[in-house]
Amino acid sequence: MNDKQNKEITSRDKDFAKWYTDIVRVAHLASYSNTKGCTVFEPNGYAIWEKMQSILDQKFKETGHVNVYMPLLIPENLLRKEGELVEGFAPEVAWVTEGGTKKLEERLCIRPTSETLFSDYYASTISSYRDLPKLYNQWCNVLRWEKETRPFLRSREFLWQEGHTIHESKAEAEAETLRMLNIYNDFFHEYLAIPSIVGKKTEKEKFAGAEYTYTVEALMYNGVALQSGTSHYFGQKFSKAYDIKYLNRENKYDYPYQTSWGVTTRMIGALIMVHSDDYGLVLPPKIAPKKVVIIPIGEDLEVLSLAHDYLEKLNASGIESYIDNSDKSPGFKFAEAEVNGIPVRIEIGKRDLEKGIITLARRDTREKSEVFINTDIVKDVSILLEDIQRDMYDRALRRREEMTYTVTDLEQFKDIINTHPGFVKAMWCGDSKCEEKIKEIRGCKSRCIPFEEEKVDDKCIVCGKPAKELVIWGIQY
Amino acid sequence: MNDKQNKEITSRDKDFAKWYTDIVRVAHLASYSNTKGCTVFEPNGYAIWEKMQSILDQKFKETGHVNVYMPLLIPENLLRKEGELVEGFAPEVAWVTEGGTKKLEERLCIRPTSETLFSDYYASTISSYRDLPKLYNQWCNVLRWEKETRPFLRSREFLWQEGHTIHESKAEAEAETLRMLNIYNDFFHEYLAIPSIVGKKTEKEKFAGAEYTYTVEALMYNGVALQSGTSHYFGQKFSKAYDIKYLNRENKYDYPYQTSWGVTTRMIGALIMVHSDDYGLVLPPKIAPKKVVIIPIGEDLEVLSLAHDYLEKLNASGIESYIDNSDKSPGFKFAEAEVNGIPVRIEIGKRDLEKGIITLARRDTREKSEVFINTDIVKDVSILLEDIQRDMYDRALRRREEMTYTVTDLEQFKDIINTHPGFVKAMWCGDSKCEEKIKEIRGCKSRCIPFEEEKVDDKCIVCGKPAKELVIWGIQY
Repeated sequence: MNDKQNKEITSRDKDFAKWYTDIVRVAHLASYSNTKGCTVFEPNGYAIWEKMQSILDQKFKETGHVNVYMPLLIPENLLRKEGELVEGFAPEVAWVTEGGTKKLEERLCIRPTSETLFSDYYASTISSYRDLPKLYNQWCNVLRWEKETRPFLRSREFLWQEGHTIHESKAEAEAETLRMLNIYNDFFHEYLAIPSIVGKKTEKEKFAGAEYTYTVEALMYNGVALQSGTSHYFGQKFSKAYDIKYLNRENKYDYPYQTSWGVTTRMIGALIMVHSDDYGLVLPPKIAPKKVVIIPIGEDLEVLSLAHDYLEKLNASGIESYIDNSDKSPGFKFAEAEVNGIPVRIEIGKRDLEKGIITLARRDTREKSEVFINTDIVKDVSILLEDIQRDMYDRALRRREEMTYTVTDLEQFKDIINTHPGFVKAMWCGDSKCEEKIKEIRGCKSRCIPFEEEKVDDKCIVCGKPAKELVIWGIQY
Repeated sequence: MNDKQNKEITSRDKDFAKWYTDIVRVAHLASYSNTKGCTVFEPNGYAIWEKMQSILDQKFKETGHVNVYMPLLIPENLLRKEGELVEGFAPEVAWVTEGGTKKLEERLCIRPTSETLFSDYYASTISSYRDLPKLYNQWCNVLRWEKETRPFLRSREFLWQEGHTIHESKAEAEAETLRMLNIYNDFFHEYLAIPSIVGKKTEKEKFAGAEYTYTVEALMYNGVALQSGTSHYFGQKFSKAYDIKYLNRENKYDYPYQTSWGVTTRMIGALIMVHSDDYGLVLPPKIAPKKVVIIPIGEDLEVLSLAHDYLEKLNASGIESYIDNSDKSPGFKFAEAEVNGIPVRIEIGKRDLEKGIITLARRDTREKSEVFINTDIVKDVSILLEDIQRDMYDRALRRREEMTYTVTDLEQFKDIINTHPGFVKAMWCGDSKCEEKIKEIRGCKSRCIPFEEEKVDDKCIVCGKPAKELVIWGIQY
């Protein structure tokens, strides 16, 4: 194909924001609803979330976690027990004040997150070290009263999982915080083909109520950063605020240590902004709900029979495939499969069949190759899917590296952020006043203090005082 | 074991309501939360829901349905478009009136059900017969402001799936309504081992806004009926109210036909009330998250090694099993496995091992049998699980039959409902005034007009006028 792009999609390099919403629309991932700030997750979008859920849920269970479900509504007095959390979330919650035709005596908040409910539950069910640890997770909807919303990236209601664990010792809780961060990071690398970076949030950027927050940060095609998953260590903050006391091994009362960690439907936004192009959605095979589309060209019986033969073989081997035998034209079907991000397309035409060949097209590079009809289709497709998965990661990594800058001079910092943003590595003294100064540059924030320590200068890029650590900075969604 | 019951559990025959809440508590299925009328789904309870979800989700997908997700909140004006639905639900919804520290201009209702949102979405996305049918389903939480609540049976927030489909023709929509009802009914019979009855609701008992409602009705151990799943045919009611117009095959504007259907976490309540006993939960193997517990008695290496050998074989063959190697006493472990409703228990003791035998105990009948240690454990357990599943269904069916009465006399009807309730079959003239009269008898309601037609008399049991059809009546949860 020589066409430069799908006509319904704005060019990514021309107007990234418009390109993004075009992809969401034409790939039928989500649509705006008449509930302000809330989106409808359409079948194609929700199927990606289901795939994410099934992979992560298995990883959580393999590491000993079990699922539970806490109420949607939190009584105001319960929410107010932990001061920092309330302060962080109070400006962005929705309140239920009427129920069953009556005004309520106490307002109920729709959960923006569930630390309060889990802590309240732990307080009533944990009494001995024998009850510890509890490794709980919950898949649910949450609500935050955002002003500006964009599908998947920021919306009033979103879907997520929130893990909430409670432990006897500090060491165990800290290990859990790190373990779950690593599960997220592996998931980004292995499944989403996104070369994320892990590190610790600064005091200013950590979760309200946490002692510290670990984060998974990813860089989008346009150089904007996306916080893509977080894991919080709470120490005894919540156990003290909610009076979760237990008898320890020395038969003395003690407060346990807690963590929480979560990823959201925002990951779908990350997938789009890292991988997709002007032809539509591009999905890494391991997260694509449908991996292969088979398109028979014409109504020839031999063609259809081969299509069904391939379909059966691919599905039987666990490669989710389907045939598009609608009455649309082949060109239309090709374009639709591209827009929807189906990783591999198999084209079977009568004339090619006479030559004994069929065509495999990969979505990521749009390259086509011909193979003999009597090929081992499962093997060919499997290899191709692996290639796509690896190549997508490699390309994303190269782009991230190209868009990662190391600077020791504030003017240079400003220049980069103002002209071609990305991850900017620069030294920091640890003072939040210097963080504030950086924020004046297009709202640029500290993304994280990366686990991979690095020293590029002796002094803080803002104040020139001795530097404490290297920080990765960036503009964020 | 000679003990008559678990001491923490009230006898089922003595106080059924207390017995029910005892089971919920001691089997750690759910617990009360500090959010009034809402429960915490604990790991054991939520795992049953996950099992139900995975089975039903597969059946929905096999029949061409796809999952989507609509917003939690419904603007008041959108809710009010279909008059009957509003009237039915308005008294039992919760309203969000404040968001992000501000009073909202328009109240938002927390979804009690999502016909309005699906209809609104269909109106904006369907324009041609080529867009039909849409076979959508959604797994989510809903809220209804109930006054009296009981775990799983009736709570302000509950979890469910709601299918919402839209079709070109009346015939197709009606077939869908029936198809989904049958999927529910099969699920009750095959997986939950509950001999449910299917039929049509009377005009008075149908869903607000539906043209008619099909229902799955089950009878609990105490003779009380539970509406366990419903499938509604809407005709063009919603498509007209929400102006879902499309160009039909004759190129004319027309209104499509809709259905909706749902089952909820209430099914967990049904499982408890049909099958469980004074020793705790009893679960049909096909719905039990864990099917087998292996209990090694003592710390003997040979015992432990055999336990692990069995564990590996059972899990490898898809029979979810676990070893209880905690430091509790064997008796305690046996009781705990019983309370939690693990269908099969394998006991391995050193002395028995010397004799070359182990013990299999089935939870439903509490019978034990001995088998040789070199037995094909997977085969033995598989057969036992099948026996349990079948026997549980058969027992529940016998009980239902024993508690189903056919009457032609109103005094006899009252006597049954007042002394030993159950399903009561009696003829009805079709007049809702006669239904009202029946309701005066302990709130007894028509459960359904069963699909299996029957005629036991010529005249209505209330007014004596010519009878139109047989109705199954019962006291309900």
